[in-house]
Amino acid sequence: MTATGQAIIAGVPTSGTAGVFRAVDPSTGEPIGPQVSALTTAELGAATAAAAAAFPAYRATSPQDRAGFLDAIAEQIEAVGDELVETAMAESGLPAVRVQGERARTCGQLRAFARVVRQGDHLGVRVDPALPRREPLPRPDLRMRQVPIGPVAVFGASNFPLAFSTAGGDTASALAAGCPVVVKGHNAHPATAELVGRAIARAAEQTGMPAGVFSLVFGTGNEIGTALVTDPAIQGVGFTGSRGGGLALVEAAARRPQPIPVYAEMSSVNPVVVLPGALGGDLAALATGYVTSLTNGAGQFCTNPGLLFLPTGALGDRFLDAVGAAVRASAGQTMLTPQIRAHFDERAAYLAGAPAVTVVATGSPGDSANAPAPTVFATGLADFVAQEELAEEVFGAAGLVIRYADIGSLARALSGLEGQLTATIHGTDADLDSARTLLPVLETRAGRILWGGWPTGVEVSEAMVHGGPYPATSDPRTTSVGTLAIERWQRPVCYQDLPAQLLPEPVRDDNPWRLVRRVDGTLQLP
Amino acid sequence: MTATGQAIIAGVPTSGTAGVFRAVDPSTGEPIGPQVSALTTAELGAATAAAAAAFPAYRATSPQDRAGFLDAIAEQIEAVGDELVETAMAESGLPAVRVQGERARTCGQLRAFARVVRQGDHLGVRVDPALPRREPLPRPDLRMRQVPIGPVAVFGASNFPLAFSTAGGDTASALAAGCPVVVKGHNAHPATAELVGRAIARAAEQTGMPAGVFSLVFGTGNEIGTALVTDPAIQGVGFTGSRGGGLALVEAAARRPQPIPVYAEMSSVNPVVVLPGALGGDLAALATGYVTSLTNGAGQFCTNPGLLFLPTGALGDRFLDAVGAAVRASAGQTMLTPQIRAHFDERAAYLAGAPAVTVVATGSPGDSANAPAPTVFATGLADFVAQEELAEEVFGAAGLVIRYADIGSLARALSGLEGQLTATIHGTDADLDSARTLLPVLETRAGRILWGGWPTGVEVSEAMVHGGPYPATSDPRTTSVGTLAIERWQRPVCYQDLPAQLLPEPVRDDNPWRLVRRVDGTLQLP
Repeated sequence: MTATGQAIIAGVPTSGTAGVFRAVDPSTGEPIGPQVSALTTAELGAATAAAAAAFPAYRATSPQDRAGFLDAIAEQIEAVGDELVETAMAESGLPAVRVQGERARTCGQLRAFARVVRQGDHLGVRVDPALPRREPLPRPDLRMRQVPIGPVAVFGASNFPLAFSTAGGDTASALAAGCPVVVKGHNAHPATAELVGRAIARAAEQTGMPAGVFSLVFGTGNEIGTALVTDPAIQGVGFTGSRGGGLALVEAAARRPQPIPVYAEMSSVNPVVVLPGALGGDLAALATGYVTSLTNGAGQFCTNPGLLFLPTGALGDRFLDAVGAAVRASAGQTMLTPQIRAHFDERAAYLAGAPAVTVVATGSPGDSANAPAPTVFATGLADFVAQEELAEEVFGAAGLVIRYADIGSLARALSGLEGQLTATIHGTDADLDSARTLLPVLETRAGRILWGGWPTGVEVSEAMVHGGPYPATSDPRTTSVGTLAIERWQRPVCYQDLPAQLLPEPVRDDNPWRLVRRVDGTLQLP
Repeated sequence: MTATGQAIIAGVPTSGTAGVFRAVDPSTGEPIGPQVSALTTAELGAATAAAAAAFPAYRATSPQDRAGFLDAIAEQIEAVGDELVETAMAESGLPAVRVQGERARTCGQLRAFARVVRQGDHLGVRVDPALPRREPLPRPDLRMRQVPIGPVAVFGASNFPLAFSTAGGDTASALAAGCPVVVKGHNAHPATAELVGRAIARAAEQTGMPAGVFSLVFGTGNEIGTALVTDPAIQGVGFTGSRGGGLALVEAAARRPQPIPVYAEMSSVNPVVVLPGALGGDLAALATGYVTSLTNGAGQFCTNPGLLFLPTGALGDRFLDAVGAAVRASAGQTMLTPQIRAHFDERAAYLAGAPAVTVVATGSPGDSANAPAPTVFATGLADFVAQEELAEEVFGAAGLVIRYADIGSLARALSGLEGQLTATIHGTDADLDSARTLLPVLETRAGRILWGGWPTGVEVSEAMVHGGPYPATSDPRTTSVGTLAIERWQRPVCYQDLPAQLLPEPVRDDNPWRLVRRVDGTLQLP
C-alpha cells in the first residue's frame, strides 16, 4: 500500500489543488516518494466540517467503543508492517532501531489512552447531593463531569515522524477525550503521515466511528496551518516544533473571534547541573552518558541536554577531558531535513565565534549529506549570564558546558533561565544541601526534574510531565506526554437538579461505568 | 477602624501619589468615604516585588499552616463586624440581607478552601514506581505533584463587593494553591476593599505568613491594571467583570514576553428554555420565579436570566401575561454605580427601539437616584436570530422573551448563541424527548445546565462550574466558583529518580500528608 501523496478527508483519499511538493531524503538531499498534493483553504474546510459533523456522535461513544477505536488504530499501524518503518527511515534519516522503537511507543501510547478511557478517571466526576433542608437555603443536586472541547487540530512534528505526529500523543489524547482530530502532516515525512493516516481511517471504519473523526491534510507554506487554527470548527490545537511556529499558531488562535487553547511544545535547553560530589565517581562513564544523550538521534530531541553546569577546578577539568574524548569518538548522524541541518550549522558557528566560548571537542561528520559533527563548547558562568543568546536552543548535537564556582551564583543563573521541559541534577549524598538550594529554583523553571540520568527518553506514564513554563510550552498547566495529557481537551460541565432520566451515565446514581467519583467532597472508589 | 483610603502593601498601609478618587453612594450619586490615593506604577512595583519575595516561603507552608491562614482570614473578616456591612451597603447600594449573605458566602468560601488544602486532593499526586527489570528499557521512578504558579493578580468585581472581590473566590483559591495575591480594589467600593484587606493582613501576621503574601492596590484609569498584569512577577490573573475589561487584560497578558493565564469571567445572557409541558403547571408561580431571578440585586448577576425561550400559542401567551403582571408589580433597586445604570438605560432603550421587539411590561423605578424600572421585552425566534445584538448582555433587570414554534428551530438558535455560564430548561416528563435534543447543544454552549429553578444563586461546592465557553469566560477549562477553582493556579511537576531525602512530602513513600494518590495508574485512598 504505497503512499499516493493524497490527503485523507473523513476516510476518503483526496487530492488537493494548491500545488504539489515532495519529501527529501535527508541522507542524500534528493527528492523521494510520491508527489504530495496540497489542499486549498476551501478543500481544508471539508475536513473541519466533517470533524464538526462527527463530533456529536463521537463524543457520545461509550468508553468501550472509544477505547476499541484506539486499540484498533494501534493494530492497524502495526499491520502496515515494514513499509512504515522503511518509509519513516527514508523520510527522516533516522535508523531502523529508532523508528521501530518509535512505532512501539506510538502504539503503546494509543493503548495507554484506551486504558484511560476504559477507567474513566479523567471524567473527574463530582456529585454534591441535594440538601433540601439546609438553612438558610437548600442546596440543589449538583453533578460535574468533564466533556470534550470539540474538534482538535494536531500538527505533525519533524523530529518524531510517528510518536508526535499523525497518530502521536496529541492525536491519541484528543481522540481519547472524545474530540475528532484533523492532522496537518509534516512536509518532511508526508508518506509516513499518509500510511499512518490510512491506518487510522481503517480503524475508524472497522470500529464504526463516524468518518469525520479523523482527517489528514497537507499544505505548502504557513497558510494551511493558519487556516486550520482559525477555522471556527476547531476548538483546540496541539503542536510540537519550533518556537517561531508555535508562537504563530498561538497568535492566530488568540486573534479568533472565539480564542481557543493552543498547546505548543516549543523549545528547551534542559539544563544539567553536575554537583561536586558527582565528580568523585566514574568520570568517563558520566562523560559518556552526557555525550550519548547529547548526540543520540542527532541531538534532535526536545529534551536534549543543551546546557551542562560544571564546577570549576581540577575534577571538573578532568570531566571535561573525558567529555572531549567521548565527543571526538562520536560521529554525526543524519539530521531530519537539510533546513534543520543548516540551522544547526548557523547556531554552532555562532557559538564557536561567541566571546569567551571555547570548543571542547568536535566529533567527525557522518557519511551522509546532512550529518554534521557533534560539538561541545565551554564557557564560564559570568560569561554565560552576560550573553543571553548562549542560552538559546541549538537543535542538534551541540552542547555548552558552563563552569561555576559556587552554588549561590549557580542558583541565580538558573533562576534567570527561561522555562524548560527538564532540569537534571547529578550529585551524591554529599550534595544534598546544594540540591535543596537548587530544587525550589528548578521547580519554577521546569516541568520535570531528574536526579542522575539524562533528560532524553521520556516515559509514557501516569506521572510524566513533558511540559514546563513558557517558552518550553505555551501552556505550562499540562503535559503533552503521559496520561494527564487527556485533560487538555476537556472542560467541566455541571448539571443542577437534572431528572434521573436525563443524567449522563458518568454522573448517574447507579454509576454504570463504575467510575471513581468525588461525592460530597470525598473520593469514592467504585 | 474606619477606612483611610490607603493601599496595603505587604501589610503596611501605603499612600499613593498618583492622584485621589472617592467612592459614590449610588443611591444619591454623592461622593462618600475617604479620599482614596492611587498608586503609581512604581509604587505598585513594591506590591508585586513583595509578592515575589514571599512566594518561596509561602509555597513551602504546610497544609495546616496554609489552611490556618485561610480560616484566620474568615475570622478577621467576621471580626470587622457591622462596619463592613454598612460600608459595603453604602458603596454598593445593595441591601443589608444581601451584603450579610455575601459576607457569609465569602467566609464560607475561605473555609471551604481551607478544607481543600487540608485534604490535599488538588495536589493530584501520581507515583509510577521504578521498573528496573522492564524490557527493552527500565522505567525510572516518576512522581508528579501540582505546584503553585506564582504571584497572582486579582481584580475586584463591581457586583460582589465581598464574594468576588478582595477576599473573594479568586483570592481564596489562589492563596489555597500557594500563590501570593495582589488585589486591585474596585473603585466603586474602595473602603470595603480596605476593610477586608486589613483583615487579610492581620490574618497573615497572626498566622506567621510572609507579609508579601497579600497586597491591596488602588489606581485610577486602566493603567494600573495593565501594569499589574504585565508585571513580570505576576504569573496569573483572576477577573470578574465586563467583556471589554476582561479582554483588555487577556490581551495585555498575551503580549508579555512570558504570557500568563487570565481567568476572566465576563458576560452571559443565561438562556432559559421553557418547554411546553412546563406551561401545564402554575403559570403565576413560574412567572414570579422568573421575574424574581431577573430583578433580584437589580439584575446585576453574571447568571441573570437575560433570555427566555417560550413556546408560541395560548399557554405561552398566558405565561407572558403572568410575567407582565409580576414585572408591573416590581420596583427598581439601586444599581451599583451611576455608570452601570447609564449603560443599562442605553441597552434598554436599544431593545425598546429594536425592530420586532415589543415591551411586555415595565415595573416602577425605585426611589433612589439609580434604580431604573425593570422591563421585560419580547420578540419572535426568527427576529431574534436575525438580530445578533439582541443576544448581547443587558447588565441589569431587563429580560428578553423569545417565542419559538418548534424544537428544531429552537435547537438551531441555541447552537448559534455565544458561550454562556448557564443554560436552564423548564419542563416535565412530557418534555424529556425535547430535552434530550437540547442537552447536547446546551452542553457545548454553557458551563452549568439547570432543570427547573433559576440560574441566579451559585452554590459554592465541589461540583459547581461557574465558567463556560468564550466569551462567558476567557478560559472554559475551569471554574471561578467552587473548589475546582484551585486548579487554575497550579502546574504539574514530575520528579524522576529523586533520592528519598529530596522528595517533597506529597510524593514521599510514607505519604506523610495522607493524600489520595494515583499509584501506577490506580487511585489509592490514604
